[in-house]
Amino acid sequence: MKNIRLTLEYDGTAYSGWQVQPNAPTVQQALQEALAQLTGQTPAVIGAGRTDAGVHALGQTAHFFTDSRIPPARFAAALNSRLPADIRVRESAEVDGAFHARYSATGKHYRYTLHNAPQPCALLRQYSVHVAQRLDIDAMRTGAQTFVGTHDMRTFCAAGGSSRTFVRTIWRFDVTCAPPYVLLDVQGNGFLYNQVRIMAGTLLQCGLGKLPAAALPGILRAGERSLAGPTAPPRGLCLISVFYGDTPPHAGLPGADMLY
Amino acid sequence: MKNIRLTLEYDGTAYSGWQVQPNAPTVQQALQEALAQLTGQTPAVIGAGRTDAGVHALGQTAHFFTDSRIPPARFAAALNSRLPADIRVRESAEVDGAFHARYSATGKHYRYTLHNAPQPCALLRQYSVHVAQRLDIDAMRTGAQTFVGTHDMRTFCAAGGSSRTFVRTIWRFDVTCAPPYVLLDVQGNGFLYNQVRIMAGTLLQCGLGKLPAAALPGILRAGERSLAGPTAPPRGLCLISVFYGDTPPHAGLPGADMLY
Repeated sequence: MKNIRLTLEYDGTAYSGWQVQPNAPTVQQALQEALAQLTGQTPAVIGAGRTDAGVHALGQTAHFFTDSRIPPARFAAALNSRLPADIRVRESAEVDGAFHARYSATGKHYRYTLHNAPQPCALLRQYSVHVAQRLDIDAMRTGAQTFVGTHDMRTFCAAGGSSRTFVRTIWRFDVTCAPPYVLLDVQGNGFLYNQVRIMAGTLLQCGLGKLPAAALPGILRAGERSLAGPTAPPRGLCLISVFYGDTPPHAGLPGADMLY
Repeated sequence: MKNIRLTLEYDGTAYSGWQVQPNAPTVQQALQEALAQLTGQTPAVIGAGRTDAGVHALGQTAHFFTDSRIPPARFAAALNSRLPADIRVRESAEVDGAFHARYSATGKHYRYTLHNAPQPCALLRQYSVHVAQRLDIDAMRTGAQTFVGTHDMRTFCAAGGSSRTFVRTIWRFDVTCAPPYVLLDVQGNGFLYNQVRIMAGTLLQCGLGKLPAAALPGILRAGERSLAGPTAPPRGLCLISVFYGDTPPHAGLPGADMLY
């Protein structure tokens, strides 16, 4: 059996998230169906992160085992010809049998995109969240630094997660202005259920002047979900990349400027 | 009567272009219907450029006359609440009665976006055209410079246009690498029917090594449409901005890097 690693890009708009569930379209299911058509086999396709409904990915990573004789690098094109246009395999490769997309991951990079302008945008409307009021970027930057380091993050975790520990490490958390967009880029060794969206929602409160950035250390220590800001909508969130042992955990950020 | 200028952003995917036509959804029609709902009046909304089916705009400009007592700057929000999400008014303002979105325009900036990677993308699939083969960017840059200046552009014009003259001036034509995207940014005093898409399709032939850039001056002089490359697909094209007397015609390009 070969262990095949996939690098995946998807527009999450039409999907009920990554993970297979009854009676709802998911990214994992679409991949497994394409793979079944291609190989006649039905292995589970394991993803590094179980993205929520409506969340996007530029560099999700997944793996599956197969004894198909298709050359490993050819799975990308072969799957793409059977996948809907909103899911694309960027790359496929054979990896060591011990590689596990989720358990071997050493970290992830998420980006949350705000569109900060008086009126909403049309072109990137599915990939950003509109904020009409002018944001205080300095307050958001100060707030973001609260999260950097190793902390018990239970304040920023939705109920329903399955983690045994709430302790996570964030390596960097950048707030970048790329008018009319504001990008929240966070890299860390792992994230709790809804953690990035709750952090984004909380930083947005700082940017709107509704929550002083100086209050965040106390809110983080309190461990009370109700003290944090609301969970920001899923369409602003994108899993940019997954890090493994061979990827520097402080890898640079992709270009912060915009197509539109 | 007040003359109201609109700055418009739209995702052209779902529309049969700008201009009203029977039995097909158009951007102009959607705007006119929203305006009728808002004011009870049915003025024509005149656009600077009649973008083709599937072509996008970040900064289309339009104008209409009204005696509505809605404050001019409020039309943006009021129209947005009645428009579909893929059309947005970025700004509205009262302008001089002599202002005409089309005839007062002194130039336009179009961007054509290529996605140059082995596999297609998912996130910006509606706003770019995939090219799997590695492009020769230097050849494309050399070719693009052929177009800069004042030329008879009939080689690069589709049948069906209504222009009396084929002479147009291009101020700049930049080819920018922003991996995995390649951006073709062109600014000029006006463009013939399908001109930008035919120039893009021709430069793509240069990038693919199918047409030497050195052949372009001769092709331009020949005035034969059949010598140019194919018309590139509409979804890669976006009307970035329209210039008027008050805008420097050599205005800088928007950020060339990418959200994804």
